[in-house]
Amino acid sequence: MFLADLLTTVFERRYLSKGADKADDRPLEALVADLIGATGEVSGQNLARQILSRYGALNDEEKRAFFRHLADGLAVSAPAVRSALEHYEKGQSKASYREFMEAVEPPRQELIRRLNQVPDATRLLVGMREDLLRLSKGDDALQALDLDFRHLFASWFNRGFLVLRPINWESPAQLLEKIIAYEAVHAIDSWSDLRRRLEPVDRRCFAFLHPAMPDEPLIFVEVALTKGIPGSIQGLLAENRTQIEADTADTAVFYSISNCQAGLAGISFGNSLIKQVAADLSLELPKLKTFVTLSPIPGLVRWLEGEGIDHGSADEDTLRKLAARYLMTAKRKDGLPLDPVARFHLGNGALVHQVHAGADLSDKGMKQSAGVMVNYLYDLEKVTQNHERFASTRTIAASPEIKSLSTAGENAFTLELSALN
Amino acid sequence: MFLADLLTTVFERRYLSKGADKADDRPLEALVADLIGATGEVSGQNLARQILSRYGALNDEEKRAFFRHLADGLAVSAPAVRSALEHYEKGQSKASYREFMEAVEPPRQELIRRLNQVPDATRLLVGMREDLLRLSKGDDALQALDLDFRHLFASWFNRGFLVLRPINWESPAQLLEKIIAYEAVHAIDSWSDLRRRLEPVDRRCFAFLHPAMPDEPLIFVEVALTKGIPGSIQGLLAENRTQIEADTADTAVFYSISNCQAGLAGISFGNSLIKQVAADLSLELPKLKTFVTLSPIPGLVRWLEGEGIDHGSADEDTLRKLAARYLMTAKRKDGLPLDPVARFHLGNGALVHQVHAGADLSDKGMKQSAGVMVNYLYDLEKVTQNHERFASTRTIAASPEIKSLSTAGENAFTLELSALN
Amino acid sequence: MFLADLLTTVFERRYLSKGADKADDRPLEALVADLIGATGEVSGQNLARQILSRYGALNDEEKRAFFRHLADGLAVSAPAVRSALEHYEKGQSKASYREFMEAVEPPRQELIRRLNQVPDATRLLVGMREDLLRLSKGDDALQALDLDFRHLFASWFNRGFLVLRPINWESPAQLLEKIIAYEAVHAIDSWSDLRRRLEPVDRRCFAFLHPAMPDEPLIFVEVALTKGIPGSIQGLLAENRTQIEADTADTAVFYSISNCQAGLAGISFGNSLIKQVAADLSLELPKLKTFVTLSPIPGLVRWLEGEGIDHGSADEDTLRKLAARYLMTAKRKDGLPLDPVARFHLGNGALVHQVHAGADLSDKGMKQSAGVMVNYLYDLEKVTQNHERFASTRTIAASPEIKSLSTAGENAFTLELSALN
Amino acid sequence: MFLADLLTTVFERRYLSKGADKADDRPLEALVADLIGATGEVSGQNLARQILSRYGALNDEEKRAFFRHLADGLAVSAPAVRSALEHYEKGQSKASYREFMEAVEPPRQELIRRLNQVPDATRLLVGMREDLLRLSKGDDALQALDLDFRHLFASWFNRGFLVLRPINWESPAQLLEKIIAYEAVHAIDSWSDLRRRLEPVDRRCFAFLHPAMPDEPLIFVEVALTKGIPGSIQGLLAENRTQIEADTADTAVFYSISNCQAGLAGISFGNSLIKQVAADLSLELPKLKTFVTLSPIPGLVRWLEGEGIDHGSADEDTLRKLAARYLMTAKRKDGLPLDPVARFHLGNGALVHQVHAGADLSDKGMKQSAGVMVNYLYDLEKVTQNHERFASTRTIAASPEIKSLSTAGENAFTLELSALN
Repeated sequence: MFLADLLTTVFERRYLSKGADKADDRPLEALVADLIGATGEVSGQNLARQILSRYGALNDEEKRAFFRHLADGLAVSAPAVRSALEHYEKGQSKASYREFMEAVEPPRQELIRRLNQVPDATRLLVGMREDLLRLSKGDDALQALDLDFRHLFASWFNRGFLVLRPINWESPAQLLEKIIAYEAVHAIDSWSDLRRRLEPVDRRCFAFLHPAMPDEPLIFVEVALTKGIPGSIQGLLAENRTQIEADTADTAVFYSISNCQAGLAGISFGNSLIKQVAADLSLELPKLKTFVTLSPIPGLVRWLEGEGIDHGSADEDTLRKLAARYLMTAKRKDGLPLDPVARFHLGNGALVHQVHAGADLSDKGMKQSAGVMVNYLYDLEKVTQNHERFASTRTIAASPEIKSLSTAGENAFTLELSALN
Repeated sequence: MFLADLLTTVFERRYLSKGADKADDRPLEALVADLIGATGEVSGQNLARQILSRYGALNDEEKRAFFRHLADGLAVSAPAVRSALEHYEKGQSKASYREFMEAVEPPRQELIRRLNQVPDATRLLVGMREDLLRLSKGDDALQALDLDFRHLFASWFNRGFLVLRPINWESPAQLLEKIIAYEAVHAIDSWSDLRRRLEPVDRRCFAFLHPAMPDEPLIFVEVALTKGIPGSIQGLLAENRTQIEADTADTAVFYSISNCQAGLAGISFGNSLIKQVAADLSLELPKLKTFVTLSPIPGLVRWLEGEGIDHGSADEDTLRKLAARYLMTAKRKDGLPLDPVARFHLGNGALVHQVHAGADLSDKGMKQSAGVMVNYLYDLEKVTQNHERFASTRTIAASPEIKSLSTAGENAFTLELSALN
Repeated sequence: MFLADLLTTVFERRYLSKGADKADDRPLEALVADLIGATGEVSGQNLARQILSRYGALNDEEKRAFFRHLADGLAVSAPAVRSALEHYEKGQSKASYREFMEAVEPPRQELIRRLNQVPDATRLLVGMREDLLRLSKGDDALQALDLDFRHLFASWFNRGFLVLRPINWESPAQLLEKIIAYEAVHAIDSWSDLRRRLEPVDRRCFAFLHPAMPDEPLIFVEVALTKGIPGSIQGLLAENRTQIEADTADTAVFYSISNCQAGLAGISFGNSLIKQVAADLSLELPKLKTFVTLSPIPGLVRWLEGEGIDHGSADEDTLRKLAARYLMTAKRKDGLPLDPVARFHLGNGALVHQVHAGADLSDKGMKQSAGVMVNYLYDLEKVTQNHERFASTRTIAASPEIKSLSTAGENAFTLELSALN
Repeated sequence: MFLADLLTTVFERRYLSKGADKADDRPLEALVADLIGATGEVSGQNLARQILSRYGALNDEEKRAFFRHLADGLAVSAPAVRSALEHYEKGQSKASYREFMEAVEPPRQELIRRLNQVPDATRLLVGMREDLLRLSKGDDALQALDLDFRHLFASWFNRGFLVLRPINWESPAQLLEKIIAYEAVHAIDSWSDLRRRLEPVDRRCFAFLHPAMPDEPLIFVEVALTKGIPGSIQGLLAENRTQIEADTADTAVFYSISNCQAGLAGISFGNSLIKQVAADLSLELPKLKTFVTLSPIPGLVRWLEGEGIDHGSADEDTLRKLAARYLMTAKRKDGLPLDPVARFHLGNGALVHQVHAGADLSDKGMKQSAGVMVNYLYDLEKVTQNHERFASTRTIAASPEIKSLSTAGENAFTLELSALN
């Protein structure tokens, strides 16, 4: 905590609060209108603080009303756009383009920017969008409003503004408790559990942070340094496992990636995380040669069931074939893989490297993928090429073994189906 | 410099460069098209790096061509806007609003955002706009293009993302050399001169920084802690002046404010600087009661000449009256003060407190204001009220003495004029 | 973690280890002799690393033998001292004084200094002394050896080398787990409990750290900001208590002070902690007027029992009188207060301000002080004077109420005793 | 600057000063006696502050008197030592050893430790010893007093307490101006010159710092990253030289090492600097294979003149032979090399690798070594072995070429001498 930051905070309580905290009993809509029209930073900051504070105390019904006001009352004016467009078409000048820009941007975008003038506002606005996403289900106007939030957030959380930071046992407790809360893949059940994932010399964790909300990780990845590619998550996380010296590891395993901010849904910044972490680690530990995930296959069981395959009695070998088949062939209408985790890693330029049965024996693991897990391999020399092929032709990169398992899976598939019939 | 940052940099040279640095001989326009169409972050980052690097090597003629390509080739498509607008008018849904948003944003905005994905891009883009401002004089299309830069920069350099930092003799040399370079009011002629403004216990300096370009101050203010309000800049900066203990000072004098980034022209963030610094200082040094500037009056002589007044023979008393008159009554067409420094401080909520003759005997000072300087007073309890009156009714807040000088100035004015006739 | 530090660590593993880790099978005593005689830093550092590593693997019996070797084999040589003393007495020159200094310092002091050349050695040596204190009970020679450790540690942990740091919820987890482990007064039973003591705006914690072992607090104090002086620890720590804004507090309560390093026993550095913290807080929060402890009275029950007083049936009023009497009159042979906590605070210049019955209802509190606690008051204007009177004349500073309670206690005392007879 | 530090400083001015700054008109000797006898930290700190402040205002005559007081009045008492020694010889108990330890340590050592309790004292005490070294010339008693300073400083500046830090263009100006001031080998004549040594990617600088005086480097080394071993300093420092990418360098050249603190003369901590820096660099830049100095030969000309050799007319080849001869054969009485720089590097385990004529054409370089310079090579695999041979048998490690030059130098030597006769 820098002095200036501290002093500012204290100051704001002492000086600014005199005006700001005076209960302004006018409706929230009036404050919003004032903020959009405010001419100066000082009065603007007071208004922003009041609105954010008032918003924080609203219940869901009131929040919905607030959003509805933004959606309806602060939208673009179609006649103004039409008029500006006509001027612009007649002559593309600075003046006509300025008129056009002003007409096509709804006032609520300027409102959001002005709310963002005060300390901690960015975090509160991300929370506001989280509310909006929750409350906008089935409400087309609120979903349209969300596009404005998303538009601004894409600018604010531009990759160039994010900072990659190692998370370890020396990190602030304030940040670590967020890691416990946000871990979405393999739950962390206590500070001791957290410590087992951060403190050993063969474990690492990295997060993207944004300077305006430094205590809130945006996305983080947990890494295990190993000899060889591990085949089960329970082995990797076992309390009594044998630690190794980091500089003897040949493999870095990305075994958990968690998005942290529901309010940043749809804002892409995770794609480069794994590659950057792989790069950092390969510099620090030159013996690292293999960068690989140990990933869940969340859609496997649902797909098998949809295909009418009873995987309950399948042996491990068959499960692996079915999993390979699923990963290589199950597609959405747009031609992309059905499995969301596969979409993420293949889209990043990884390839399907290996599948393991009996690899996740947790309830969740058994339920979603019959215990099967997959390694996606990041070959730093080939990620760009893999990515481009995947993006342009939907080609799924895979190891020869996976390809052959998938082909075999076709038979397993047929067999299973025929067994059913 | 954090480890992760360092490693990243080195990594990029080693791994990413393999692809990135391969000479891509295609025209810059082709790279730009590719970047706008890029599907993945990795290839996007490579392209961004190449474009920024290629841009850096262009001469002015080539830069103008590049900007012209953005202006003409990556503008909004009026027919697409018209079509989207019609859909939107028919039914305001998420889908129609999305179509509208996509249509009204020119591709060049997305280009600029994508260029901003790589390290140091923000600084380079600010530099790019500096070029654009220089090259767009008299060119309406390029000036329209500038509106897109400005739109994005206003979002990126939102007050909520800026950080206030003290600048002192413990600051990095890299940052300090920028202070020397950017000081625009009273030039700093050497490191020794800089040291005299930073190291004494009765001198302070504060800057706004942006996290994505931490070595580049955006705006900074230099402060002297004094007993009483000083009446001349040469006294304030005298090498042999007597230092005082900071905690015996009753007055903080803001004697120099410099904007640093030509590429951020028109992006407002200076307004709150003085007030926040005043707040910080008042907490650290509770005996500080008066927050005041010692400011140039850059337009005084020009105005006097415009009014046909020969100030050359005016005595000090007359000069003060004329200066008060100028500050209180000389207006632009829009009703705002003619003097740019007055506009800045009055717009911030300060009041005109005192004028001093013989206060700036430098060539520049004599030339622009016949040596007269002015104190603007920041009364923290009244800045909001002053600001609002100024914003709504153009009322200029002033001390009784200034008001009476200004009235007297009317006479001086008449006398001078009559003396001329 | 700075790059240089990290790199060094890695380097040491790679390069230095080649020599250092080669199993040197010679007896530990031989390595010790080599280190004392070593001529260069590199070989010295290798030896130091080996000895510290070998020591870490010893069992208690072997440690005792190691210490005995230092005690007997590396002591001062009386004949050498005698000879040097004679030379010194004949002529006090640089040469004779150098001979004297070399003779009177036992080689084990140089050994300890040389062990301290390698990273993390300071922490390991503090741990070594912790072993020594444990193993030297009843062993005069080892207790003499401890004087050498203590002599060096007093120099290394000189107040001028210590750093005061706030401990809060932003502190590294690594440091916070030490706070949990070391809290000696009111145990912290979980991370949630810790958080309740650190995160609320009306709670603070400060520690002295040493730069050479930055993850190990030496001593820390926990502070509650309150309105008025609290009368019970259970009220102060209640989970459902009402928080207050820090800047509305008028009182800072030092409710727990814990020494952390058994290996630094007898090295004084806690005395200035409270005063410095009080000073820092009074600057940050100008409304704070009262700096007070809420302290246990560990010796009260034992003393009452020694005096033959049955406190079991005493009412609260009587308990307060007896406690005041104890604090004011119970003395050791050297005239200092019998109560160790009283000795600490009175020695620091505090005064006995107030006693509270029913103030600590924990098992420990009931057992040691029948639930009574005491406030020692730090009046920053008077601590020096109080301290000096206490140091020179053993005068115990106390509030009028305590004095009158103590006098009343004399009667209670007599009554109790007479009731017993 | 951390908040706690800042607040402390301010606090001290406000609270502690009330007592401390009260003019204590007693003689300095009385304050010294008081400090040695002080019982508490608070009064001790006040006294320490007063003494250090009073000392700072003394002139040399008064300083000499102050030192004389320490030397004479605060020395060990021989009778007390004798008595303690007798007790100790009769029975080596904790009590007798404690008496012995107390008797053999002069009170002035405790004084110096107590002076070190207050902020910035360490730096002031290093300055005090600098005075003492200057004023003690020819004064045996003051030189004996210096042994006490040196004894304590050796403990305080133990290698384990030092921190290695990179110095670069991002370092605080406050630290950089010290680098300019302390550079002792190749003077830095301006901030621009400094920048040329720090900012280019193929230049580095590292310093040892002590946490208690973080703005004062203790020793620093300047490094150039090159391809191949350079043969002249003017080439290395040329303004118009061609920079190279750091990761293409194969050689790190240590071209300047400067001790910074005259008050730390005789306290060894430079030995490990080069080896640690070499280690750090070899990790960051794996292509670095050669670690070498480009060193002056300060004693060459003096030695040649002493040997009666006229080097003025010698050609470059002859100069190299003479230099090799000097480095390999010129010895002090104790068998160590005559050349101080050679003693330093050979003592560190380096070997004499190459000599270059015309390598330092500056006035100083021509005067002291006829322009000849030498490369000492640090072979990280062999430094320990080289060091040990040098330490035990005075063996000078050298490259075959140097050995052969030295032998040839014998002839050159004879020829020169015969030419003279």
